[in-house]
Amino acid sequence: MAERMIVIGGDAAGMSAASQARRRRRDRSDLEIVAFERGHFTSYSACGIPYWVSGLVAERDELISRDPQTFRDEFGIEVRTRHEVTAIDLDRREVTARGLDGGGEVRAGFDTLVYATGASPVQPEWARDEVSGVYGVQTLGDGAALIDWLEREPRPRHAVVVGGGYVGVEMSEALVQRGLKVQLVEQADQPMSTVDPDMGELVADALRATGIGVRTGLTVTGLQERDGRISAVVTDEGPIPADVVVLGLGVRPNTALAEAAGLPIGPSGAVRTDRRMRVPGVPGVWAAGDCVESLHRVSGMPVHIPLGTHANKQGRVAGINIGGGYATFPGVIGTAVTKVCELEVGRTGLRERDAREAGFEFVTVLAQSTNRAGYYPGSRPMTVKLIAERLSGRLLGAQIVGWSEAAKRIDVLAVALWNGMTVDEMTALDLGYAPPYAPVWDPVLIAARKAVDALAADGR
Amino acid sequence: MAERMIVIGGDAAGMSAASQARRRRRDRSDLEIVAFERGHFTSYSACGIPYWVSGLVAERDELISRDPQTFRDEFGIEVRTRHEVTAIDLDRREVTARGLDGGGEVRAGFDTLVYATGASPVQPEWARDEVSGVYGVQTLGDGAALIDWLEREPRPRHAVVVGGGYVGVEMSEALVQRGLKVQLVEQADQPMSTVDPDMGELVADALRATGIGVRTGLTVTGLQERDGRISAVVTDEGPIPADVVVLGLGVRPNTALAEAAGLPIGPSGAVRTDRRMRVPGVPGVWAAGDCVESLHRVSGMPVHIPLGTHANKQGRVAGINIGGGYATFPGVIGTAVTKVCELEVGRTGLRERDAREAGFEFVTVLAQSTNRAGYYPGSRPMTVKLIAERLSGRLLGAQIVGWSEAAKRIDVLAVALWNGMTVDEMTALDLGYAPPYAPVWDPVLIAARKAVDALAADGR
Repeated sequence: MAERMIVIGGDAAGMSAASQARRRRRDRSDLEIVAFERGHFTSYSACGIPYWVSGLVAERDELISRDPQTFRDEFGIEVRTRHEVTAIDLDRREVTARGLDGGGEVRAGFDTLVYATGASPVQPEWARDEVSGVYGVQTLGDGAALIDWLEREPRPRHAVVVGGGYVGVEMSEALVQRGLKVQLVEQADQPMSTVDPDMGELVADALRATGIGVRTGLTVTGLQERDGRISAVVTDEGPIPADVVVLGLGVRPNTALAEAAGLPIGPSGAVRTDRRMRVPGVPGVWAAGDCVESLHRVSGMPVHIPLGTHANKQGRVAGINIGGGYATFPGVIGTAVTKVCELEVGRTGLRERDAREAGFEFVTVLAQSTNRAGYYPGSRPMTVKLIAERLSGRLLGAQIVGWSEAAKRIDVLAVALWNGMTVDEMTALDLGYAPPYAPVWDPVLIAARKAVDALAADGR
Repeated sequence: MAERMIVIGGDAAGMSAASQARRRRRDRSDLEIVAFERGHFTSYSACGIPYWVSGLVAERDELISRDPQTFRDEFGIEVRTRHEVTAIDLDRREVTARGLDGGGEVRAGFDTLVYATGASPVQPEWARDEVSGVYGVQTLGDGAALIDWLEREPRPRHAVVVGGGYVGVEMSEALVQRGLKVQLVEQADQPMSTVDPDMGELVADALRATGIGVRTGLTVTGLQERDGRISAVVTDEGPIPADVVVLGLGVRPNTALAEAAGLPIGPSGAVRTDRRMRVPGVPGVWAAGDCVESLHRVSGMPVHIPLGTHANKQGRVAGINIGGGYATFPGVIGTAVTKVCELEVGRTGLRERDAREAGFEFVTVLAQSTNRAGYYPGSRPMTVKLIAERLSGRLLGAQIVGWSEAAKRIDVLAVALWNGMTVDEMTALDLGYAPPYAPVWDPVLIAARKAVDALAADGR
């Protein structure tokens, strides 16, 4: 009889695991693979939703990399969409799933289980009641519903986006591009708190320059409706009129099913795994993606960073191991990039407050330079911030804000950080130079030199 | 009496050394700094000349970062332009210089000498005679003369560029942009031999698509003139009509003065230095820039790679040390980027032939992907080539060719290479992801995964 692998969750992590396992064990009579997915779709790009809403991406299906049919026909992976797994029985080694479009309950035994349930948007108490015109942007269904609302008469003209993280900022831009007046409401002192306040201020300025109203230090307490439609977002500083509201308050790992089954939950609140993505102490059970926690390689602490790149890598690692190979996921360093209208933002490693929390002492520098040789057309300013450990000079974190060819430069710093380089070592890095691409001292090198000077001054 | 530092050569390396030394020893009565420069200018961007010729950069002076007056007034560095040093007397510790605009010979004693004479264009026998309409592009004077010729009646219409390296390719593009018909002549089988033939072919295709005639495997044997003006380039396959000729045959280190003084010349033909940029065995004498050789960190061999980035770094290191600080130049890995019309090309580490010469066995992979998420507007193809050592899997070299946001991705690979990463380790790298900047698997990671597979297949 075939061994059976069951995957809970048919998105990036789950389907990567399934594909990699299949790649190594091609015979269905050797390994049967079944994936249960709550939604209608498999392997889609949630990160692409803002660009679909803005109109940059024309069709929903462009965001889907592989549909269930493809998995079935080309990979021999059975995907049961619209099936929600409701229980995992570790003793009997079976899962129970419920058909969301009827069909009742099914039970399926497993030899190998991959827990890849993802994460769900944080929903504050005041957003629990259904009000027409209030949307999250986690699933393709969410995106479709929002677009439908934007196109229906009377067409919404005033949008409020709640939450100034990546999703909130990208959605604000998308709504502006559709011609709406947008207010971005953020409880903290700045939007984009994934970067330090000095860099976040640059982002806030760019948002304002696009006509987005940036309201910080404001707590949303409720919604107002009129005739069953959203009419305002209520805050501790009064109501803000809105005929469409988008929620971008972050996500939480989907752990309920794991907790009920007794899988270990780590200090970050997500499912624990070992380096091979096995759930420790539970043989034959693996976990990957937005529902698990990862080692932060700089702080040494477990963190929950839900991101498609990690989900894909973790799923791949789990699948290779399940398929009989060997692979490990060595952790994350918190690299992220985003586009805020024309502004580009990148970050990696620890922010100042993370570094302090982790117990590091450090120096910081902000270096101003340009993306290209100063005389080359299209040369634009770029700000690079480095955080380096006192005495050792080891890079702890970096942030970049600029107007063109800026964000992805963070990868250079990410690889330096990954390898534990000191800022002094970094000044010697042999980086590419040509006038259309960089000044003769690349912004990264200019920042490293400045950090070396700061360390020297600090040592005196 | 003040200590005296003499710098031979007032460009990137020499003036960086002078500036850094001055930064640490501000008092002129403590350290006097005198730089002799053969040309009219200090610290200019030779790499910018093609963009000045094309018209992208309007004014010559945009290419000059600091003029002699600024060095004098702001840094207390005496620059004697149009002065050629003709001899170094190590016993008497003095140099002899000749004023090129009259003024006769001067002698100046030194306590510290920085040899930063740069490199000069290779001039084949057939280019030795002066023919109107034949230009190198090494100095601002060369650029001015070429532009003058292009603007003088009768305006040249047919250009031949001899040599398909960076300068040749960039100048071909510049001349096309000025409306000339351009033939690029290269002795080897492909232009851009700084990348492997499979990648070079992509560059050749892009050049041809711009209307540049790419003639490879052709040896130039002479020039034809009519009425004192260039009329054709003679090759072993017949003459190619030309009313302007640009030479881009590479450069050789200027070592004559060093050799005459007995400074050590290394196996690459350039001046030897230690890690602090001291000339070994000659106390008080330093060297930096296009006239010195560097350690290639991958092959372990000395190489001569004349490039502004290295010159600036080496000059800085020398200057810090001369000023009483501590800095080292740990070598190069051969990173370079260039723009060929819209095509972007990057390379780092060893090419296949370099790796073979150095004694490595290796696998290579070519990975096709895109610069952005496939569904994001402006998504364009990108090819990443990796060369990884057999068994160890260590990255030995990488090349990228693509249409947008491609070239500078080489820096990510350069930092991985610098740190001795294996391709397996690289698959886990935490690189930035957002749809406008990358697919969820960055092209670098896709290539690393493919290299891991190739190593596994190789091991069987």
